[in-house]
Amino acid sequence: MKSPESNIEEKRQAAEAAAALVEDGMTVGLGSGSTAELFVRALGQRMVAGLRVQGVASSSRTARVAAEVGLPLIELDRRLDLAVDGADAIERGTLNAIKGLGGALTREKLVALAADRFVLIGDRSKLVERLCDRQAELPVPVEVLQFGWKITARRLEALGRPVLRMQANEPFITDNGNVILDLYAAPLDRPNDLATTLHALPGVIDHGLFLQMAQCAFIATERLTVAR
Amino acid sequence: MKSPESNIEEKRQAAEAAAALVEDGMTVGLGSGSTAELFVRALGQRMVAGLRVQGVASSSRTARVAAEVGLPLIELDRRLDLAVDGADAIERGTLNAIKGLGGALTREKLVALAADRFVLIGDRSKLVERLCDRQAELPVPVEVLQFGWKITARRLEALGRPVLRMQANEPFITDNGNVILDLYAAPLDRPNDLATTLHALPGVIDHGLFLQMAQCAFIATERLTVAR
Repeated sequence: MKSPESNIEEKRQAAEAAAALVEDGMTVGLGSGSTAELFVRALGQRMVAGLRVQGVASSSRTARVAAEVGLPLIELDRRLDLAVDGADAIERGTLNAIKGLGGALTREKLVALAADRFVLIGDRSKLVERLCDRQAELPVPVEVLQFGWKITARRLEALGRPVLRMQANEPFITDNGNVILDLYAAPLDRPNDLATTLHALPGVIDHGLFLQMAQCAFIATERLTVAR
Repeated sequence: MKSPESNIEEKRQAAEAAAALVEDGMTVGLGSGSTAELFVRALGQRMVAGLRVQGVASSSRTARVAAEVGLPLIELDRRLDLAVDGADAIERGTLNAIKGLGGALTREKLVALAADRFVLIGDRSKLVERLCDRQAELPVPVEVLQFGWKITARRLEALGRPVLRMQANEPFITDNGNVILDLYAAPLDRPNDLATTLHALPGVIDHGLFLQMAQCAFIATERLTVAR
């Protein structure tokens, strides 16, 4: 799915605004997806100008982009100063988000939770008044163990319509070796309840609801904050 | 760790008692560990006598034993009639159990939860009056994503002392590709609270507390049941 040219420009503006937050010597969590990759490239440009920074990559794809721009990577073995990531939907008033259409949601969440500050970036198409406004077309991705995934899918049917994510006629496999069930028509009017229920389900690794996590979002040139 | 001869005999008695529950045409969940393997062998003997049965293996090791005795395996893609497994500790009054010293806890739990009936088997050394009686020497195994495991270990420190399980000087890797943190001195006087807390922790796949799951346990020649 290609973004129109204007979206790419908005993503780049958001990515550069987030990159401006990074201070010399910081360790930074690097999200996944097209906007997060623009953030990695923006960091790379600041490094050319002398910024020193270490990153933690949330996906093998992001790791490749970091290598391209010469950004040194470390393992996720300590607290991070900052993490920056895109999202598939961001709720205006809360900065609650849905992530994971790219399939790296569990690592993205672990990176975000390890950071003292988590910042979302995106173009204006990602901003919604309420997450449930996007419920019809936007599933909540759920990372699930391959072992017994059909049983886990049946458990998810109590919450919506789970669809096994495919890629080139094979089940999509995450960097952690698991599958993704995209859960449609979940009750996103109460996302905290859904998040708690999903986490307690056997076979579920994690899910794409990022609730009460981001302190700040850059949407194109607009900066949104909530108190945390 | 070798069991003394008497323990092996008690395990065999328990395994045979559980195998006697299996009826023709059943699909049976097969646990992991020495006692569960004796159950698979007992089923194999009943198959020689004409029993038809299909199994779901909870570990690659159990799958090998099943292949040895000619027990046909299927994937975990449906409800099972019965699941039988050993445990590291079984609480007399509740049949709450701790499992996972063998490292297959997540698959064992998924198999047990898919079964209409879950039966525990063991020798008398596994039976305790209260799970917390074994707290000092028996950790609660927690399966954890490799990505960011040190951060997850730091989160577990709020609950006890997590120790990365090793094997031949390398971190032990589960069949699902994850590591095990053995959690010592967790507050096993309130196992349900601990189970809920563990499940909600990011990076945690599952844990070795099997609570309110077994309907029946065979301990050597003794049969214990609880109403479910």
